[in-house]
Amino acid sequence: MESIPGLWVVIPAGGAGTRLWPLSRAAAPKFLLDLDGGGRTLLQRTHDRLAPLAADRVLVVTGEVHRAAVLEQLPGLAPARILAEPAPRDSMAAIGLAAALVEREDPDAVIGSFAADQVVGDVADFHRCVAEAVDVARTGLVVTVGIEPTGAATGFGYIHQGEALPGFPTARAVRSFTEKPDRATATEWVASGEYRWNAGMFVAAAGQLLDQLASEHPRLADDLRAIAAEPARLAELWPGLERIAIDHAVAEPAAAAGRVAVVPGGFGWDDLGDFAAVAANLPGDRLKVLGDASRVRAVDSSGVVVAGDRAIAVVGLDDVVVVDTGDAVLVTSTGRAQEVKAVVEALRAEGLTELL
Amino acid sequence: MESIPGLWVVIPAGGAGTRLWPLSRAAAPKFLLDLDGGGRTLLQRTHDRLAPLAADRVLVVTGEVHRAAVLEQLPGLAPARILAEPAPRDSMAAIGLAAALVEREDPDAVIGSFAADQVVGDVADFHRCVAEAVDVARTGLVVTVGIEPTGAATGFGYIHQGEALPGFPTARAVRSFTEKPDRATATEWVASGEYRWNAGMFVAAAGQLLDQLASEHPRLADDLRAIAAEPARLAELWPGLERIAIDHAVAEPAAAAGRVAVVPGGFGWDDLGDFAAVAANLPGDRLKVLGDASRVRAVDSSGVVVAGDRAIAVVGLDDVVVVDTGDAVLVTSTGRAQEVKAVVEALRAEGLTELL
Repeated sequence: MESIPGLWVVIPAGGAGTRLWPLSRAAAPKFLLDLDGGGRTLLQRTHDRLAPLAADRVLVVTGEVHRAAVLEQLPGLAPARILAEPAPRDSMAAIGLAAALVEREDPDAVIGSFAADQVVGDVADFHRCVAEAVDVARTGLVVTVGIEPTGAATGFGYIHQGEALPGFPTARAVRSFTEKPDRATATEWVASGEYRWNAGMFVAAAGQLLDQLASEHPRLADDLRAIAAEPARLAELWPGLERIAIDHAVAEPAAAAGRVAVVPGGFGWDDLGDFAAVAANLPGDRLKVLGDASRVRAVDSSGVVVAGDRAIAVVGLDDVVVVDTGDAVLVTSTGRAQEVKAVVEALRAEGLTELL
Repeated sequence: MESIPGLWVVIPAGGAGTRLWPLSRAAAPKFLLDLDGGGRTLLQRTHDRLAPLAADRVLVVTGEVHRAAVLEQLPGLAPARILAEPAPRDSMAAIGLAAALVEREDPDAVIGSFAADQVVGDVADFHRCVAEAVDVARTGLVVTVGIEPTGAATGFGYIHQGEALPGFPTARAVRSFTEKPDRATATEWVASGEYRWNAGMFVAAAGQLLDQLASEHPRLADDLRAIAAEPARLAELWPGLERIAIDHAVAEPAAAAGRVAVVPGGFGWDDLGDFAAVAANLPGDRLKVLGDASRVRAVDSSGVVVAGDRAIAVVGLDDVVVVDTGDAVLVTSTGRAQEVKAVVEALRAEGLTELL
C-alpha cells in the first residue's frame, strides 16, 4: 500500500482499559500492552498498520503522563508528532486538536482517526477501506469505517446504514448511530444486515470536521483552533474545554443532517475490551497463555492465563480467566469478564490508587 | 479432663499434604500450617488437644528436617520428647519407635497415636472416647477410634465394626479395615450403620503393639526395640527398616485375629485433605478467606481464597479455590481439589523442586 496523498492519521491513545485490570493500569494502560504475545503493543501495531498510509503524517494524541512511554514505544515517531493532553477531555478535544493543527499545516488535509487500542485482522483489506473512506471524505462527508458484525455483541455501538453511495465501490449513507443495544435488539439488528459496529474510526477533511463541530459546539471548535494557532495557550484553554465524545459532538448531528457515510469493513476487528476478547484473539487451544507459558501447569482446563513472575496451576476449570501480576491476581470466567470493572470501581472507591 | 495415668501420647507429624499445594510445601508441610485462620497450626491444635490427657508424656515423631520447626511451634515440649526420623519410613516405624522407647521407660504404658494434621470438633467428646479406648486397650486389645461418617466419603479408609464389647459404654469389636471404597460402596456402607471412618487413631499397650508387630514383622519389631535400647544405633538401623503403614503391619492382622476394638467417635473430625475440606472447615459464608481478608475483593463468588501478599479479585465464580503464595498461584474448584496432586506430581517429574 502506498501512502495516500493528503491523508493525516490521528491515533488517540487513551482509555484506561479497566476491564483488563490488573494487567491494564493507570501507569500502563491497555494501548501500551502486548495483548497477543507477539512482542508488539496495541499502540505499536496500530502505528505499524497506519504509518504506510500516511508516511510521516501521523499524530499520536495521548495524556502528558504517557508521552514518554509513547515515545519509547514508537522510536520512529518525531517527538513533535506527539500531542500531549494536560488532562483527559474526551475524544472530541483530542481528535479536534489534532484536526486544528493539521488544518493549519495542510488546509486540504483529510484526517483519519483510529484508536490506539484495537486489533485488525486483514490489514490489506483495512487499507482498502481507509482509502475508499478518504475518497468519500473528499466529497465533504464525514466517513466512518463500520465493522461487519460477527455476532450480536452488546458491548459496541452500532451504525444503521442506508442507501449505497453512487460512485463508490462499497460506501453507503448512514441513517444513525446508536448506543450499545440489549441482546435482543442486537440480535435483530445483526440479522437485518443493515447494521455495522461502530469502531470509532472517523475520516473527514480536517476543516470540514471542525466546521461540523462549530455548528453545534462553536466554543469548543473556536478554542481548539485558537490552541492550534497559538500553542502557548494550551494550558490556559485546555481545562475549560467541553468534555464530549466525537460520536455525540460530530457523528450523530452530522448523521441526522445526512452528512455521514460508512465504508463497511470485513477485515476482522476487535477492541479487546475484556479478557474474553483477549482470549479469543490469542492463538492456542484449550487454555491459552499470554506471557511465559512455561510458568503455567494446566489440568483439564480451558480459558486464558496471563502469566506473571510466578508458577500458575489451573485444575479442572472451563472458560477461566487468571491474571497474575506483581501486586494483584484476578480470577474470573470469560462469561463474567465484563464485571472486572466493578472491582476497579471498588478499589477506586476505597482509595487504593496504588492498585489502579 | 484430667491426665489419664499411664497414657503416653504419640503425635506422628509427617505427610506432605500435596493436595494442599502451593500452601503446603516440603519445607512447610500441612501439619505446620494454620488452616482455620485461628492463629494455631494443626500441630499446635493437636498438641493443645492431647496434652491435657498425658501431661508431659507426649512424644512428637517427625522428620529431622522439621525438628526445629516443631520445637518452635511447641515451646512447652521438652526437646527430648521430639523423635527425629533420619528419613521417612512410613507410619509403623515412626509409631513403633515411639512405642519401643515408651515401653522401656514405662513397661505398663498405653500409647495413643494421633496424627498431627487433623481437626476435631468437640474436644470433650474426643477426650471421652480416648479415655474409653485406653480402658479397652488395658484388656490387651488394639483399639482404634472410628469416626462416625457424615457422608459417603471416598477419601478415607473404613472400619467394619462388629458386636458390642461387654463391659464398655460404646466400644465394639472390629471385623476388618478396608481401603478407600468407590462411591457406590461408600454409600452402601454408610447407610448400613456398620462402618466408621479410619482416622488412623490407635490406642494400645506399648508392649502389646510391638508384640503384635513381632508376630508378622519380627525383624522390624526387633530393630525398633534395639534402637530404643541403644539410641546410638538409630543411624545404622533406620535406613534398613521395612516401610509399612501401621494399618497393614498391625491393625489388619490383629483385626483378622479378633484382637481389635473400635470406640465410635461422633465429635466432628476431618483430615483437611484438600482445599474443599479446608473451605468446609473455615468460618464464613459464600467466599471464605484464609489469611488477610482485606486483600480479597469478591464479586458474586463462592468458595475459598487463601490470601498471600497481594490483592486478589474473584469475579462471578462459584465453588472456586484460589491460593496465592509468593512463588505460585493455584486456581481450581472445590469439586476438583483432589486433582491438585497431579500438579505436584508434574512439577516433581520436571524436577522443579523449588516449587515443591
